[in-house]
Amino acid sequence: MEVSLNEAAAWLLQQQDITILCHQSPDGDTLGSGSALCRALRRLGKHAQVLCCDPVGSRFSFLFAGMEEQKFEPKTIVSLDVADEQLLGELQPVYGGKIQLCIDHHPSNTHYAQRYHVEPKAAATCEILCSFLPLLGVPLDEPIAEDLYTGIITDTGCFQFINTTPHTLRMAASLMELGVPSHKINRAMFATKSRQRLELEKQALNHIEYYRNGRIAVIPLTYAMVQQTGASDDDTDGIANIPRSIEGVQVGITIKEKSDGKIKVSLRAQPPVNASVICSRFGGGGHPGAAGCAMIGCNMEEAMKKIVAATADYLEKL
Amino acid sequence: MEVSLNEAAAWLLQQQDITILCHQSPDGDTLGSGSALCRALRRLGKHAQVLCCDPVGSRFSFLFAGMEEQKFEPKTIVSLDVADEQLLGELQPVYGGKIQLCIDHHPSNTHYAQRYHVEPKAAATCEILCSFLPLLGVPLDEPIAEDLYTGIITDTGCFQFINTTPHTLRMAASLMELGVPSHKINRAMFATKSRQRLELEKQALNHIEYYRNGRIAVIPLTYAMVQQTGASDDDTDGIANIPRSIEGVQVGITIKEKSDGKIKVSLRAQPPVNASVICSRFGGGGHPGAAGCAMIGCNMEEAMKKIVAATADYLEKL
Repeated sequence: MEVSLNEAAAWLLQQQDITILCHQSPDGDTLGSGSALCRALRRLGKHAQVLCCDPVGSRFSFLFAGMEEQKFEPKTIVSLDVADEQLLGELQPVYGGKIQLCIDHHPSNTHYAQRYHVEPKAAATCEILCSFLPLLGVPLDEPIAEDLYTGIITDTGCFQFINTTPHTLRMAASLMELGVPSHKINRAMFATKSRQRLELEKQALNHIEYYRNGRIAVIPLTYAMVQQTGASDDDTDGIANIPRSIEGVQVGITIKEKSDGKIKVSLRAQPPVNASVICSRFGGGGHPGAAGCAMIGCNMEEAMKKIVAATADYLEKL
Repeated sequence: MEVSLNEAAAWLLQQQDITILCHQSPDGDTLGSGSALCRALRRLGKHAQVLCCDPVGSRFSFLFAGMEEQKFEPKTIVSLDVADEQLLGELQPVYGGKIQLCIDHHPSNTHYAQRYHVEPKAAATCEILCSFLPLLGVPLDEPIAEDLYTGIITDTGCFQFINTTPHTLRMAASLMELGVPSHKINRAMFATKSRQRLELEKQALNHIEYYRNGRIAVIPLTYAMVQQTGASDDDTDGIANIPRSIEGVQVGITIKEKSDGKIKVSLRAQPPVNASVICSRFGGGGHPGAAGCAMIGCNMEEAMKKIVAATADYLEKL
């Protein structure tokens, strides 16, 4: 059932031994909201831990600084920023059907949890937590503010994306006043690229393909290409924003081949195009501006043909 | 003499026929503050115009939308975001020594104007104008808010740079509430690249040189290279941020050869390095994080040697 933030807080205050679940391929928002809630619950004297099926990228490890491991048998399961149980990845078989509270901002949230609070207009789940944590009676302090600030800037591209509202900017201002080293975090999230990442960008720029009079731009990242540059998963993430940034491009597509041959597609779109709708044709989802899907049972070339055809079809009907 | 914003407003309200000067190679802040003040003065029934020695880049032309030319003999000269009279370029011989009011945020401002108001902690001159224009009795409306928002985001890298304060974010939130199409402006300023610009980035990535164990990174942009890609001055501007963004780089240097063979150097630095100090050795200046200078009487290779040597010397003494 749908719950208000007040109802969610009242319920959570009654619970003990809480496991917080993040989505697979974790980003700053799922990890930042996870670490912030975990810190808040521990400050209330509760046992709490954050779980994710994938490892936390090195640039996000600061979010868990000083947070010691706690061993306990979980009695309460909460998910944050997880739009669908499928996105729990390898944790789905363990926790699927058992999630008691979900707080999220994805419009595509499938309401799988026993209690859910979804705010599709919030820029980030961390933005919702700025209002939620005080309802638990936990005042925001510097480490929590750092977690929340990180989630907000990673989901808004440092206040650049269309989801940024005046409320987002004011929340961030308040977090900065709690002592968040905002410039240091901004730099780590956006302004720092490894040499490997730069090498990968060069490769990406060399391989861009345009379709439909330049309305669609595609970057294919083969496994060999990524290996050759020495780039990490973290490095490849930012590449997805490049094709959409080109003048005249409405849909930017990045197709990435993983080590096991699986194909992952990232779509970035300009309004009025809804990237989530295109990805839903292949069982994926996300936001209007940014969505993703997995292409099963095909190679890079076939995947590219399929996604370009689906996108062109969508654009034609628009 | 130094004046408060209140004193500057009281004085300006007494003046007529006002020419507003911007700095050469105009950016969003000098143009945004110029157009905002011009609109405000006209709303008070005064004659006002904005002048710059260089043409306004196409992506900034929206700042002057609906602003008809006014012909009048200027009785009052104001400069905005101009740290030194030298930066008036070809307008210096005409207006040098005659500037009656300067509003600026550059710490390196040389106090050349008869009245000056400099706030080194303001993220942008446009941020100062958010407080100044209401003192003229002009409420901020949508077109003025658009001008001011543009200056703030261009000088802060969309709230990413170290000059961004909680006050900056709150001002921007208020401007958004006046109806500024923030996402559209963000995209035009930051997220849209011409194909020529992408081509130039590829070239830049191919020509990066590293010095002093990767603490200095240099991108040389020859005139031929820029010509070959078809990139404009606007396109080349953003390249300057690339070398500083590389992991481990403390000083990023971009050296650009202009059509007349003149060499322009842009420095970007990480704290504690002060880019302005290095550029001042060559008669340039700017902010700690971003500064520039012209290298006179030398070719690309010599310019690169000189600036790298000066930077290495600075780093050694740090």
